[in-house]
Amino acid sequence: MRTFIIYSRGRTDSRFNIEDLPSSGGRMDLVARCINSALWLSHGIRRNTRLYIVLNGAPSPPVTLCFDGSKIKRISPDERSIAIWIKKVLASDFGKEWKEFRNGILVSRKSFQDIVKEHDKKNIYVLHEKGKKMKLKKDPVFVLGDNFDIPKKEEKFVLKYGKKLSIGEKSYLSSSCISVLNWLCDK
Amino acid sequence: MRTFIIYSRGRTDSRFNIEDLPSSGGRMDLVARCINSALWLSHGIRRNTRLYIVLNGAPSPPVTLCFDGSKIKRISPDERSIAIWIKKVLASDFGKEWKEFRNGILVSRKSFQDIVKEHDKKNIYVLHEKGKKMKLKKDPVFVLGDNFDIPKKEEKFVLKYGKKLSIGEKSYLSSSCISVLNWLCDK
Repeated sequence: MRTFIIYSRGRTDSRFNIEDLPSSGGRMDLVARCINSALWLSHGIRRNTRLYIVLNGAPSPPVTLCFDGSKIKRISPDERSIAIWIKKVLASDFGKEWKEFRNGILVSRKSFQDIVKEHDKKNIYVLHEKGKKMKLKKDPVFVLGDNFDIPKKEEKFVLKYGKKLSIGEKSYLSSSCISVLNWLCDK
Repeated sequence: MRTFIIYSRGRTDSRFNIEDLPSSGGRMDLVARCINSALWLSHGIRRNTRLYIVLNGAPSPPVTLCFDGSKIKRISPDERSIAIWIKKVLASDFGKEWKEFRNGILVSRKSFQDIVKEHDKKNIYVLHEKGKKMKLKKDPVFVLGDNFDIPKKEEKFVLKYGKKLSIGEKSYLSSSCISVLNWLCDK
């Protein structure tokens, strides 16, 4: 099992405009591309991969979406299609516990720290330009920010459980980091 | 200089629907993601990278778009924004020779073979699951297909100038291949 956890500033209700994902959605375009990079192969889904998107934007953070590659069905890989699903999930009723909105898409009001704690027995790697290069262990959990770094307080928390990993000195798009990490794990 | 050439089945006029890039655009969503992966870093553009998209879809193939990272300005990295630019370029007047539509975006009626020939003195690598692993030389030119392979006839042509390169046995999204290739070249 391969896991990605994204700390995002994405909006936490469905009142964002599908025609303006970057502004109205709090970079929901970036979120959609991360989902695409994590789960899609050229002609199939990565069944061994799960992705958590922790939304921390207005109006009612946190909300966490989980996309489970082992169960996902009939979703197109383009940003708009993925964002329409996110909008539908956010418009539904849900609380603190996981609710399966449809096959392989779950939602809850869990926080970034809740999600990290759910993975505290695993090999957690926090992506950072200033981290170390290292050999990846089995069943890795990768933690990434969106277009801004993970807030210091949250980074300090997750580093109690994991290590700072660097894949290079450049600051890459989150979706590009995910593509590279998936490829490194495939090798 | 780093170059990507994408053989796409994308539509060759502007009559595609921004709200339906996958079907009406002939996978113009995929084209937009390739542009994103090739040119964007987290907070900037890869100034050393150029991307050619050869559109071979209806109604009047071929059309080639060139996105030149050294000159591009004020474009957002989301699929919709990139696709809106493609639509504007395709709605403009252009012929066989390169026309600069705006800073860093050029268009012409050149074919896949024309573009390959313009790079015949360089190190051309044709991405293929069944290619070989190899060390990349300076100023590489990477040739990729879209969601389908490059047609046999075109592949045979480009292999007169280049080699079949594999980055793994899995069939990755074109945009993911580009992210991995950019990362390998950065190392």
